[in-house]
Amino acid sequence: MADKAQLQEAIKTQGEVVRKLKSEKASKEQIDEEVAKLLQLKAQLGGDEGKHVFVLKTAKGTRDYNPKQMAIREKVFNIIISCFKRHGAETIDTPVFELKETLTGKYGEDSKLIYDLKDQGGELLSLRYDLTVPFARYLAMNKITNIKRYHIAKVYRRDNPAMTRGRYREFYQCDFDIAGQYDAMIPDAECLKIVYEILSELDLGDFRIKVNDRRILDGMFAVCGVPDEKFRTICSTVDKLDKMAWEDVKKEMVNEKGLSEEVADRIGEYVSMQGGKDLAERLLQDSKLSQSKQACAGLTDMKQLFSYLELFQVTDKVVFDLSLARGLDYYTGVIYEAVLSQTVPAPVSTPAEQNGADEAGVSVGSVAGGGRYDGLVGMFDPKGRKVPCVGVSIGIERIFSIMEQKAETSSEKVRTTETQVLVASAQKNLLEERLRLTTELWNAGIKAEVLYKKNPKLLSQLQHCEETGIPLVAILGEQELKDGVVKLRNVASREEVDVPRADLVDEIKKRTL
Amino acid sequence: MADKAQLQEAIKTQGEVVRKLKSEKASKEQIDEEVAKLLQLKAQLGGDEGKHVFVLKTAKGTRDYNPKQMAIREKVFNIIISCFKRHGAETIDTPVFELKETLTGKYGEDSKLIYDLKDQGGELLSLRYDLTVPFARYLAMNKITNIKRYHIAKVYRRDNPAMTRGRYREFYQCDFDIAGQYDAMIPDAECLKIVYEILSELDLGDFRIKVNDRRILDGMFAVCGVPDEKFRTICSTVDKLDKMAWEDVKKEMVNEKGLSEEVADRIGEYVSMQGGKDLAERLLQDSKLSQSKQACAGLTDMKQLFSYLELFQVTDKVVFDLSLARGLDYYTGVIYEAVLSQTVPAPVSTPAEQNGADEAGVSVGSVAGGGRYDGLVGMFDPKGRKVPCVGVSIGIERIFSIMEQKAETSSEKVRTTETQVLVASAQKNLLEERLRLTTELWNAGIKAEVLYKKNPKLLSQLQHCEETGIPLVAILGEQELKDGVVKLRNVASREEVDVPRADLVDEIKKRTL
Repeated sequence: MADKAQLQEAIKTQGEVVRKLKSEKASKEQIDEEVAKLLQLKAQLGGDEGKHVFVLKTAKGTRDYNPKQMAIREKVFNIIISCFKRHGAETIDTPVFELKETLTGKYGEDSKLIYDLKDQGGELLSLRYDLTVPFARYLAMNKITNIKRYHIAKVYRRDNPAMTRGRYREFYQCDFDIAGQYDAMIPDAECLKIVYEILSELDLGDFRIKVNDRRILDGMFAVCGVPDEKFRTICSTVDKLDKMAWEDVKKEMVNEKGLSEEVADRIGEYVSMQGGKDLAERLLQDSKLSQSKQACAGLTDMKQLFSYLELFQVTDKVVFDLSLARGLDYYTGVIYEAVLSQTVPAPVSTPAEQNGADEAGVSVGSVAGGGRYDGLVGMFDPKGRKVPCVGVSIGIERIFSIMEQKAETSSEKVRTTETQVLVASAQKNLLEERLRLTTELWNAGIKAEVLYKKNPKLLSQLQHCEETGIPLVAILGEQELKDGVVKLRNVASREEVDVPRADLVDEIKKRTL
Repeated sequence: MADKAQLQEAIKTQGEVVRKLKSEKASKEQIDEEVAKLLQLKAQLGGDEGKHVFVLKTAKGTRDYNPKQMAIREKVFNIIISCFKRHGAETIDTPVFELKETLTGKYGEDSKLIYDLKDQGGELLSLRYDLTVPFARYLAMNKITNIKRYHIAKVYRRDNPAMTRGRYREFYQCDFDIAGQYDAMIPDAECLKIVYEILSELDLGDFRIKVNDRRILDGMFAVCGVPDEKFRTICSTVDKLDKMAWEDVKKEMVNEKGLSEEVADRIGEYVSMQGGKDLAERLLQDSKLSQSKQACAGLTDMKQLFSYLELFQVTDKVVFDLSLARGLDYYTGVIYEAVLSQTVPAPVSTPAEQNGADEAGVSVGSVAGGGRYDGLVGMFDPKGRKVPCVGVSIGIERIFSIMEQKAETSSEKVRTTETQVLVASAQKNLLEERLRLTTELWNAGIKAEVLYKKNPKLLSQLQHCEETGIPLVAILGEQELKDGVVKLRNVASREEVDVPRADLVDEIKKRTL
């Protein structure tokens, strides 16, 4: 622990930092951060003096999950994991931090959002920023060329948090990926089938899955006359079409990115197109687009993709949409994004969101996204051996937010325990009998609770059931003990019946199926 | 990313650090760490020059979990979580990092093992070191005075890793705690019941649960003549009795800790005592010990504890053992530790282990431990309000290691997927038919796979089943399609029957219950 003089010195210095920022009229955000640090230092000093001045909070941009939130989270995970397992996926786990260099050069400008660990001697480490790069590192390190895996874990981004909109600095990602050299578009189609199944089962209302292909986008830019070096930046402008009108997107292309009006208008024609297999077929005949080899490869695959999607019975929700761009650099083929149709409170977009760098790696409004990335694993292989990959990330934090909102407006109470029965008594001095019966029930696999009081009131025992949703109470009294029965009470209906003690386990099981 | 000149400078400096350490004959450990950092820097430079020199590894002391390890982990978690739920527990989650000051002053000397995050502007953060301190922070912050919760999550310690013995820098903790003001020893007894149930169900062989009480230890030290200020240090010497002979422990007390031979011998008499309720009763009559108020309070509670343990039917494995001390400062009452009887490869003890600071917060050889800590939550409350707590931590990493060893020696193969059936064909050009049937099965909730090849060989399809343990194959051919049937093959027995397509789902369900 720092000694007092050191701390006081640090407080003085930090106070100056804050004053300087204020005099420079720095952003509120920045000032708040430095003030927080100052308070922390002061609190430390207070603590040392025995004043117990603690800043009782979680780190900025993070939150605790309370039992109710955990119950919802468990329900969502169960649906998603069941789906992954239905499709034959395995699961892996990787450490929460990686060597810093493993993450270097993978996220472009967003690298500044990576959390680094302090150099305490030894390796330089960073918290993982997503699950895809650790997955690629895992494949290369273990020379795995074939795997279908899911990975659900937390990732970390020093982003501007917007917690009311479900954007945190610590958040879950929920990834499913298929790695391996296979015949074209079969695993890609399965990823879309999975998104379809998960969104249907979560019952979040109607949704659409937009699909496009990096090669179609690049081919389109080429035939429209966009210079090669501007492909990526124009791509990210196109990506804003789900939040901005075409006129504004065009303005950005012309005024900020330096395209001619003519080129922008040509792009405008293409990116307004939406359809299915028919659109892919039509564009293969398009006089301009058909001149791009890349675009043709993408369009041929798109046709193939739709024929598999028909067999998978999911085409009613899938749209081939030429305006879908997606931010990440590493995509090489098909890309997709799922969007809920239901109106949700319009989020105010921030610069980070406009870059598509939101909490789940999918842009705002979307609840799943992904695509094909055939080059990433090769970046980790000493010999550059490629392992083709396609995957999808479920925007689980957004889904949690929606489910939490639903739970709050619903009349049904979220239970946080699964207790089937409370062992209670109406009379005094029956603690031992209650513990004995509870033991019988636990040993028979029944989920049972008993209050940790020698002589609890019957009312407080019944209240505990109502508060926590326990459906049954097994009540013991002198008479019941004499008769070898237990009074089984239904908490909701208040009905009571005497059940022979030997039949109690079966009766509870029958009633709480 | 650092520029080249900066990197080269850093490499030079780091090279000097390594040379200096070598010339000073520093520990191999320390030199290795600095060499690793040097290699990392060189790799970064190589990467910049396009050489793709990556250090392909996970951070020191951490590991990936492969699908087989994950399958074992899932099985262990299911058993443990079922037990926690059977006892009516809720679950919570807290962020992986906390404000640095939240952890300050909680771990004594071990604080040096805390991972700090780099100061990138904003709050000073550290990775959590255990789940108990975040739990106490959560209770104080949310003013919760009653909860029974479990929390399973990873914690971080910059300890000397010993991965072959299951000691990592990133590892799971698996905690169950009961917070609240209740009648004495009822929740304490439930914690022991839980340890008993979990260890029985995990089927790890015979085990014993040792119990003692901080107050009995302190009272014993007092009546033996140990000066107050030496209680803690003598306590940690006593804690070594499970690894060292009494003679050596005594030597440490006399030579290193400065006790007189006489005092040490008096302690020696007590700490050799083991028993049950009877021992507690006898010691309450002990002429010396009964003079300590503290010891009497502890012994009275111990008697009470054993009477509840009798009702819970677990006394066959529980021993009141006066040599059990446990390292952590925050225990205030009953303490316990579960040890497997089965001989495991004798671990070479390291200084850290001798301090009891091993991977699961329990000493080597033990698979669960815990106790009562009535003061910790009050440390976080601005008004110092206390919330009495008692809890247990399951030494899950050690259990994983044992289960993994068991799985390796067992003839039964660990399955990493739950796939019930592979949809296959023996003839060419049936991809569409395979996808159509797979869709039918998925839509009916069957876990099904299909190879991502247009024309896979039947042999490679069958091999996939054998390798991954898929029990059934649904084979399609021209004839089957014409007849409206599917050939269902049992992979193990090689038996095949034609099943009408309409009955296929039911047949698969029946066969893979």
